[in-house]
Amino acid sequence: DDALRVGSRTFTSRLLVGTGKYKDLTETRDAVEASGAEIITVAIRRTNIGQNPDEPNLLDVIPLDRYTLLPNTAGCYSAKEAVRTCRLARELLDGHNLVKLEVLGDEKTLFPHVLETLSAAETLIADGFEVMVYTNDDPIIARRLEEMGCVAVMPLAAPIGSGLGIRNPYNILEIIENAQVPIIVDAGVGTASDAAVAMELGCDGVLMNTAIAAAKRPVLMASAMRKAIEAGREAFLAGRMPRKRYASASSPIDGTFF
Amino acid sequence: DDALRVGSRTFTSRLLVGTGKYKDLTETRDAVEASGAEIITVAIRRTNIGQNPDEPNLLDVIPLDRYTLLPNTAGCYSAKEAVRTCRLARELLDGHNLVKLEVLGDEKTLFPHVLETLSAAETLIADGFEVMVYTNDDPIIARRLEEMGCVAVMPLAAPIGSGLGIRNPYNILEIIENAQVPIIVDAGVGTASDAAVAMELGCDGVLMNTAIAAAKRPVLMASAMRKAIEAGREAFLAGRMPRKRYASASSPIDGTFF
Amino acid sequence: DDALRVGSRTFTSRLLVGTGKYKDLTETRDAVEASGAEIITVAIRRTNIGQNPDEPNLLDVIPLDRYTLLPNTAGCYSAKEAVRTCRLARELLDGHNLVKLEVLGDEKTLFPHVLETLSAAETLIADGFEVMVYTNDDPIIARRLEEMGCVAVMPLAAPIGSGLGIRNPYNILEIIENAQVPIIVDAGVGTASDAAVAMELGCDGVLMNTAIAAAKRPVLMASAMRKAIEAGREAFLAGRMPRKRYASASSPIDGTFF
Amino acid sequence: DDALRVGSRTFTSRLLVGTGKYKDLTETRDAVEASGAEIITVAIRRTNIGQNPDEPNLLDVIPLDRYTLLPNTAGCYSAKEAVRTCRLARELLDGHNLVKLEVLGDEKTLFPHVLETLSAAETLIADGFEVMVYTNDDPIIARRLEEMGCVAVMPLAAPIGSGLGIRNPYNILEIIENAQVPIIVDAGVGTASDAAVAMELGCDGVLMNTAIAAAKRPVLMASAMRKAIEAGREAFLAGRMPRKRYASASSPIDGTFF
Repeated sequence: DDALRVGSRTFTSRLLVGTGKYKDLTETRDAVEASGAEIITVAIRRTNIGQNPDEPNLLDVIPLDRYTLLPNTAGCYSAKEAVRTCRLARELLDGHNLVKLEVLGDEKTLFPHVLETLSAAETLIADGFEVMVYTNDDPIIARRLEEMGCVAVMPLAAPIGSGLGIRNPYNILEIIENAQVPIIVDAGVGTASDAAVAMELGCDGVLMNTAIAAAKRPVLMASAMRKAIEAGREAFLAGRMPRKRYASASSPIDGTFF
Repeated sequence: DDALRVGSRTFTSRLLVGTGKYKDLTETRDAVEASGAEIITVAIRRTNIGQNPDEPNLLDVIPLDRYTLLPNTAGCYSAKEAVRTCRLARELLDGHNLVKLEVLGDEKTLFPHVLETLSAAETLIADGFEVMVYTNDDPIIARRLEEMGCVAVMPLAAPIGSGLGIRNPYNILEIIENAQVPIIVDAGVGTASDAAVAMELGCDGVLMNTAIAAAKRPVLMASAMRKAIEAGREAFLAGRMPRKRYASASSPIDGTFF
Repeated sequence: DDALRVGSRTFTSRLLVGTGKYKDLTETRDAVEASGAEIITVAIRRTNIGQNPDEPNLLDVIPLDRYTLLPNTAGCYSAKEAVRTCRLARELLDGHNLVKLEVLGDEKTLFPHVLETLSAAETLIADGFEVMVYTNDDPIIARRLEEMGCVAVMPLAAPIGSGLGIRNPYNILEIIENAQVPIIVDAGVGTASDAAVAMELGCDGVLMNTAIAAAKRPVLMASAMRKAIEAGREAFLAGRMPRKRYASASSPIDGTFF
Repeated sequence: DDALRVGSRTFTSRLLVGTGKYKDLTETRDAVEASGAEIITVAIRRTNIGQNPDEPNLLDVIPLDRYTLLPNTAGCYSAKEAVRTCRLARELLDGHNLVKLEVLGDEKTLFPHVLETLSAAETLIADGFEVMVYTNDDPIIARRLEEMGCVAVMPLAAPIGSGLGIRNPYNILEIIENAQVPIIVDAGVGTASDAAVAMELGCDGVLMNTAIAAAKRPVLMASAMRKAIEAGREAFLAGRMPRKRYASASSPIDGTFF
């Protein structure tokens, strides 16, 4: 048994996916299915999950009896907007209280605004939400978010939509080693090996959207990501061989040169 | 259909594994099975495949009706030794002509000796062998080995037994882009993401031994590697998103800074 | 003319150095001199600059008519402690108002505590200090510190005393491109090339202590750092050649593979 | 005293530069002078050093009483051509016997052709030349070139004209640790920090051309390179601090994670 526990819920898959940027809802559905993801995040301000009864509804292809929806606050630049968006999501989804909080600091880089994020997290937790929170890779901020009661801390690997992979594995590792809640890398993964690297570091999961949706063949990439997440998790649990300069070296490399 | 064709043979799996360094033959068997590998390489000078009738025989756990055995010349430091070893293997295996040639240049680093390798390859090909050849990552040498008639070229990712991953992806990519035969990364892979990276570059396969056998839990690592190879292959075929500094960047990063 | 302007002061050297961890004051003096640094940072809580009249005084080897002293708040874990320490320094130094603010979040990693840092910066600026501020590499936080009126923003390259070099050049570059005040990399540089890399990114300066003091030959390393800072600055101003896969490539590498 | 000894000659500078790709001979002269180089390499097949009496002569700006000319065989794709070019150079330069041998394997990548290189080196050494030799970064090949009698071994950092920096520091380090002759990185350096990194590894020198000539301001880049080489050399001799995850870590990082 190697389950992922987030707040009051338990999951088998450690891959979380978004629903943006696909050609159409059919492709969204096929990619989500190929990914094996159980938690599907949705940008409430950009996605129709019933607000517009006459338009295509995401829930037609992501049925709530099969997936756990994770409403997110993409596009919010203040605590106030983010809190309002979460409350709207809860209403639309009949009291569903699991949300992904993201408050952005900048339209260009989409970096998190950690001060507004801390403020919104405090309000949302007091209001009964289970908050998964997008943040930077600062270990001190991550710890504070955990202490406040966030159910998962989600540091970025790299800027949203960049596909650059984990820019600072030291920080991510530091966050993981000090955490009691799941650490889920969010944003910046570009290809399968990036996802595997995150899991090998000991992350509890990875959330991605563009890496799948902006691949030339999204459904095949979704399958690749599913396998990469499993591969990385198994490699982490299996305990990798030490790195050495060569087989005959009596001790692992000690980092004095590279 | 995405088969791997090596000389006259066709395979589904793109992971090739060795049989050294396991605790016992049971662990060897279980790891090989978990890896999904179809091609199993064996160091003829160190492994009993019938030379010593009274000792445990590898073929009891790696049956020839299920796996393709790939005799290798590990431990040979000259063309002469390597050729003799291949001929011995052919005798022991009733005319089996597929071999992995490796001629080492150095006991410490186990780097290939490309001059002796070229010489041995020439002799073996003239003698009717199908030669898969371990070499350095020099694109000019790789092309020459292909031109001589080797059925697969196998550049090292990093020194044998080092677990350092692909040290020079530029060279590996250069080799891949110019090759008509399969390019199979051999040696140096340390964990699952390393294998995925190799496949994402466009390698046709990866051969490994220590990364599995020296993991704390070899059978689980074998499973991780199987998935990583598939993940990397699918990601390669799926066509990854471009790398950008951030989502709003209008063009991919142009490499002028990092 | 390529001067470094920090608040109301102007400097020629872009290397700032600390005074901790040396064998004795003679070595401190020789290393500082070899570094060519004009701004010398001093941990007020750990260094005698007159508080203990009977003990060796740093100012005997770092005379105030030759160097600009930069009192820092190393060892402070709250805004309150840091503010008190800056005020103590100002008293000891006859009204000197330039300080380096650092508020730490963790005794193990010595990561900055950005929330306490923001709070302390606000108080100090209102109290007439010119604040150079140690922070993480979050571009949003860096911008806020600049908007508050800090005279220089000093993101970490890597944890204090780690010698790991710039862990996340993307973030440092993002900070640089958006700043109107000097960006000075502080903490984490390990050797000369790390300092050069920082300057090539466009940093305005680098502050270091351990990289010099913990080298086997500190005075020689100080000289190396002086040259590396100048080399990196000149390379930045000279405009480096584009990166390409090879000379004949018609366009720079586009980042789609590595 | 930290002199560079190459064959029968001794030098102070560890930066070797080429003369190609400059706007005109004035820029060539100014850049060479700013670099502080004492050894200047010249492509005999492309440069007028007296073959064409009516055209501008490089020797007018690179006087032989001030610099050591290092004729090279750029543009040669066979041992035969390279040997002929060296002999021509010796005639043109009144018996000057120091040459840089390069035999290329490919017009696209300009990778060395090590087999032709070995053949040419043998002939040239027998013919009384002091041979500095451009090669790949294979430690076994490097050792063989040294054993044959080459006076310096010059592995590539990256493809000629690529500006990618040292692609495989492990191989370069392996070559350095096993050599009795100078190891001079040749080709691939792109900016000042690349040069510093090479020297910090323990290289005896660096040869470059494009990194200076193709900078926006070549003369300033030449100055940067001079300082970077000195900085890297001093940092190597000074003995850098160990890398650690953070200051409080009791031992250096052991390479098990990155």
